[in-house]
Amino acid sequence: MDNISIALDAMGGDHGLSVTVPASIDALERNAELNIILVGDEPQIQQHIKADGRADTVKGRMSIQHASEIVKMDEPLAQALRKKKDSSMRVAIDQVKAQEAKACVSAGNTAALMAIARFVLKTVPGIERPAIVVSMPTELGFCQMLDLGANVDCTPKQLFQFAMMGAVLATCSQGKARPKVALLNIGKEEIKGNDMVKGAHALLKNADDHVDYVGFIESDQIYSGDADVVVCDGFVGNISLKSVEGVARVTSFFLKQEFNRNWYSKLTGLLARPALMRAAAHMDPRNYNGASMLGLNGIVIKSHGGADRVAMRAAIEYAILQVEKDIPAQVKNRVSKLVNLGND
Amino acid sequence: MDNISIALDAMGGDHGLSVTVPASIDALERNAELNIILVGDEPQIQQHIKADGRADTVKGRMSIQHASEIVKMDEPLAQALRKKKDSSMRVAIDQVKAQEAKACVSAGNTAALMAIARFVLKTVPGIERPAIVVSMPTELGFCQMLDLGANVDCTPKQLFQFAMMGAVLATCSQGKARPKVALLNIGKEEIKGNDMVKGAHALLKNADDHVDYVGFIESDQIYSGDADVVVCDGFVGNISLKSVEGVARVTSFFLKQEFNRNWYSKLTGLLARPALMRAAAHMDPRNYNGASMLGLNGIVIKSHGGADRVAMRAAIEYAILQVEKDIPAQVKNRVSKLVNLGND
Repeated sequence: MDNISIALDAMGGDHGLSVTVPASIDALERNAELNIILVGDEPQIQQHIKADGRADTVKGRMSIQHASEIVKMDEPLAQALRKKKDSSMRVAIDQVKAQEAKACVSAGNTAALMAIARFVLKTVPGIERPAIVVSMPTELGFCQMLDLGANVDCTPKQLFQFAMMGAVLATCSQGKARPKVALLNIGKEEIKGNDMVKGAHALLKNADDHVDYVGFIESDQIYSGDADVVVCDGFVGNISLKSVEGVARVTSFFLKQEFNRNWYSKLTGLLARPALMRAAAHMDPRNYNGASMLGLNGIVIKSHGGADRVAMRAAIEYAILQVEKDIPAQVKNRVSKLVNLGND
Repeated sequence: MDNISIALDAMGGDHGLSVTVPASIDALERNAELNIILVGDEPQIQQHIKADGRADTVKGRMSIQHASEIVKMDEPLAQALRKKKDSSMRVAIDQVKAQEAKACVSAGNTAALMAIARFVLKTVPGIERPAIVVSMPTELGFCQMLDLGANVDCTPKQLFQFAMMGAVLATCSQGKARPKVALLNIGKEEIKGNDMVKGAHALLKNADDHVDYVGFIESDQIYSGDADVVVCDGFVGNISLKSVEGVARVTSFFLKQEFNRNWYSKLTGLLARPALMRAAAHMDPRNYNGASMLGLNGIVIKSHGGADRVAMRAAIEYAILQVEKDIPAQVKNRVSKLVNLGND
C-alpha cells in the first residue's frame, strides 16, 4: 500500500496537544503506511513528542508544520476565516490543497473548519454545499446520517445532493452496493412534513436509477437499521444527534445513582459492569469518532472537540479509510452522472 | 374536593378497549373524586367492563357515551374532521365543549385529535396555534418541552406564545414561581440558528417582565435540568423526542444482547436487574405518559398510542392535575397580560 499523509490540526480540540500528539503516535504505530504532519506551534509540539517518549518507534513518519495562530473553539467565523491565515486549522487544510497531505483532521471549532475548508478546497462540481456526515450505530450495523450541522437552512435540491453523497459513503465504507436512502421526517405519510422535506421527497422519488430511495423515516428509526443513509438539514440533524447525547448522559446519571444506592446494588453493579461496558461500547461515540465533511475537493475529518486519545486515533484512522476509498473522487463521479435530477 | 369528570376516547390507541377500560377503573379506584365518561361503542364497552369485574367498586362514577365511529390511527385528517362527526374522539371532545367533562383523554391519531380539538374548542385569545407539550425527565426533575409535533412551520411570534404557555405549565405543575425558559437551538451564540429561532430570541429577550428567558440551549441540555421550559417548533421537537425513543430502543437491544452472551453475564444481568429497572423507571415514558394540547379553551390530553394500562392511567391522572390547576384559565390569564410583546 502507498504511503498516506495526513495533516493534523495539532492545536485543535478541548485538550489540544496533550491528546493530538499521543493519539498521532498511537495511529502511526498501528498503521505502517501512515505519515502524519502535525500542524501547530513547533516548540510546543516538540515538547509533547519528547514527553511521549515514543518518537523513535515511528521515526521518519511524523513531521511538523509550524503555524503561529490558533482558532479558538468559540471564535467568530469571519475572524477565523479572514484574520487567522496562519492558524493550525488553516495551515492543515492548506496542506491538503497543496497536495502535501491526502486528508486533514481537526477537533477544532466546527463552523470555522467548515468555512475554511469550503473556502480553500471548494466544493465538487454539482454540490452546492458540503455536509457533515457521521456513521451512526444501528441494530444492524451503521447508517450514514447527514447533514449534522453545516447547513441550517436547506433547499430540496441540497437535500437531494446530500442523499447522493451519503449513498457514496455507504457504498465505499460499508460495502453496500445499493444503499437504502431515507429522508428524516415527522411521519411516514406523504402529507407529513415541511415544504423542504416534501420537495426533496419529490426529487428523490424520481431518481430511481441513481438511488434506492425508501421514503420517509421517523427519528426513532435511525437506530433500527432500516436505512443505510438518513438525510436531513443541518438544524434537524444537529438537534437529533445532540438529543441522543443528552439522554445518554442522563441515563448514565440515573444508572450511577441506582447502582450506588446501597452495598447490594453496588455489588451487582460491579458484577454487571463487563456486560454494561460491552453494551455501552456499541454506542460509544469514541469508537466511531470522526465526522466527514462531504462534498469538498479533499478530505476533511472533524473530530469531536472533547475527543480523548482513543477517539482522536479513531478520527485519524477514519481519515485513512477515506483516503483509501478516495471519497471525493467517488462523490465527483456519482454527481457528474446526475442530469436533470435536482441538479439541472 | 369537587368531582372531576373526564371524557375518555375509549376506542383510541393501539390497544383500544382492552387498555382504556381497565385503566379507567384503575384510575377511578385511586382517585375518589374522579368520574369517567367512556366514549365509544356502548355494547363493546359494556362487555369490557363486565370482563374486568370491578364495576361495583367504582359504582356511579363511570358512565358510557355512545359513539358509532372510530378515527383510525392512519386516517387522513380531513376525513376524520369532516366525515366522522360521531367518532369516539369527536364525541369525547364535544363533552368538554358541552361542559359535561372537564377534560378529554385520547390515545388516538395525534393529528386528528389536534385538528378536531382546535375546531371544536378553539384557541385561547392571543394564542394562534395550540402546542403539544410533554414533561421530560431531567437530572433535576422535569422540564416542559413544546411544541412536539402540532406545528411543522412556526413563526417567531408563535414560538414566543409557546414559551408563555410552557411557563404557565411549569408554574402550575412543578411549582416553579419563575420558570427558566430556553429556546432550543444548534448553538448557544446569538449568531447560531435559523431565522425563526433568531426572531423568537429577539422577542423573548425583550419580555423580561413576563418570562425568565435564559437564551438558547442545545438539545444535549434538555435532560440536564438547565431549563424548566424548552421551546421549539413541532418538527424539531418531534425529531428530538423520537430520536431519544429510538436510541433507548437500540440501547436496550444491545443490553439484552450483552447480558445474554453467556451464563455468567446472564447471572449478573439477573442480579443487576432491580437497579437497572429503577434507573429505567426514571426514563420510562409510561410513568409520565400524557401530552397536553396547550392553548385550547379546554383540556385535551394525548396519550401515547401504544400506551399500556399503567401508561393510560398516568394520562388520566395527568388530566386530573390539569383540571385541578385549571390550566386553560391560567394560560388565558397569562396571555391577556401580554401587550405589544409578540402579540401586538
